[in-house]
Amino acid sequence: MPSISTPSKIAGTQAQGAIVHFSGSTSQEREAVVTDVVRATGATLIPPYDHPDIILGQGTMGLEIQSEVASMLAAGEKLDAVIAPCGGGGMLSGIAIALHGTGIRVFGAEPSFQGADDARRGVETGERVASVKTLTIADGLRTPLGDYTWKIISDKEYVRGLYAVTEQNIKDAMKLVLERMKCFVEPSAVVGLATILYNEEFRQMVEKEGGAKGWNVGVVFSGGNTTIEAIMKIFGDVEESKKEREEGVLGRDGSRVAENVAG
Amino acid sequence: MPSISTPSKIAGTQAQGAIVHFSGSTSQEREAVVTDVVRATGATLIPPYDHPDIILGQGTMGLEIQSEVASMLAAGEKLDAVIAPCGGGGMLSGIAIALHGTGIRVFGAEPSFQGADDARRGVETGERVASVKTLTIADGLRTPLGDYTWKIISDKEYVRGLYAVTEQNIKDAMKLVLERMKCFVEPSAVVGLATILYNEEFRQMVEKEGGAKGWNVGVVFSGGNTTIEAIMKIFGDVEESKKEREEGVLGRDGSRVAENVAG
Repeated sequence: MPSISTPSKIAGTQAQGAIVHFSGSTSQEREAVVTDVVRATGATLIPPYDHPDIILGQGTMGLEIQSEVASMLAAGEKLDAVIAPCGGGGMLSGIAIALHGTGIRVFGAEPSFQGADDARRGVETGERVASVKTLTIADGLRTPLGDYTWKIISDKEYVRGLYAVTEQNIKDAMKLVLERMKCFVEPSAVVGLATILYNEEFRQMVEKEGGAKGWNVGVVFSGGNTTIEAIMKIFGDVEESKKEREEGVLGRDGSRVAENVAG
Repeated sequence: MPSISTPSKIAGTQAQGAIVHFSGSTSQEREAVVTDVVRATGATLIPPYDHPDIILGQGTMGLEIQSEVASMLAAGEKLDAVIAPCGGGGMLSGIAIALHGTGIRVFGAEPSFQGADDARRGVETGERVASVKTLTIADGLRTPLGDYTWKIISDKEYVRGLYAVTEQNIKDAMKLVLERMKCFVEPSAVVGLATILYNEEFRQMVEKEGGAKGWNVGVVFSGGNTTIEAIMKIFGDVEESKKEREEGVLGRDGSRVAENVAG
């Protein structure tokens, strides 16, 4: 972990029995420490998203969604689409592969703040955006696509479209999920719901394709790595951290954020 | 509703299609408005806790808990106890009646702040505490027992014991439930868990009666009527509202609180 990680994340990981190794926050520094650990311990490196095994593992969510709607299918209804958050793209790629050929459309959702919608922009121009520097409150989605995930996500046969939402959209959706669904999720978790509720382009597309009946959409919520303190920073009018954010020192979750570069 | 209710609660209720009538915040003022509404509309009054029908309705939670542990029972384990929050006592009474004769012990949990543990104190002295004035953050548990609920809860055949927890215990349990269980609950919901985790008297009793194997305890979480704003007030170090609380003007949820008197 970068040594600047939120203390609660470090403590939470250690509480699960993990041995945490610390590094600097650039990918070069992280990889140097990983190489040392692998050499010293014989450990197997599990990359966070850009690896076929990870993609296939996360893709089991696609199977889970299908089994969850089994009773709906039995009643003659169908699942028309699934929307999932997109950061490094491992989860979205896996879901797209799992649902390929089922007739269920797969969409990706990203934050738009400071260019965090790298996947959407890349697909638009046909060229992968390899580097992103954003302090979006959806801090799990600050990473750009990797080589594997770009190949899948830029293929319309797998991912039908990508949509982006504002920081305010994310906060509004998060408030709804916490207060009404009673689920304590992190900002990254709600970009799919925020797209459905607030992205006019997405809504018009559904209206056009789904007609009066609309669509049954499966919405992926991932994940829940947040704290009361982080929620207070996001929703509070804390002048100090606001100032630091403007200066680019603090992420909205209070972590000191460095540039996220894929690969 | 008292006209001083939290605006989000009023809006939330209206959003469910309810017609909300407003009153002052004393029970006398509330009852006067209710009498008028009943007379004008022919409506049926459903009291919040001190009525046999309400108690029986809330008691279905006892049945629900039993059905939820059915697979545990099939595996030869048993449910040793259930603990539930106690405010007006309708829910606790209902659960105690539902589980009576099953061998499952029923316990009640209350906040201790400013005498909010009226049920525990009443049972200790053998006389119902009819009036409570407390600003505990567990604002759903500020009400004292009513006539019906006192009869059931003070009977050891139904409720084996009552335990109280501090404001800090409630905050600690709430932090755990939000951050680790990912459930967005109000402070009143976690007094049972707080008792299990932090009340030494309860823990020693379980150790004595349950031995090395301990007990399987069903914990009732109710409810989730809170907002991000209220959570921020509870966990934030907001000097202004702290001052108002000390002066007895503001409840921890920001609502202006009047005396709660049963009956």
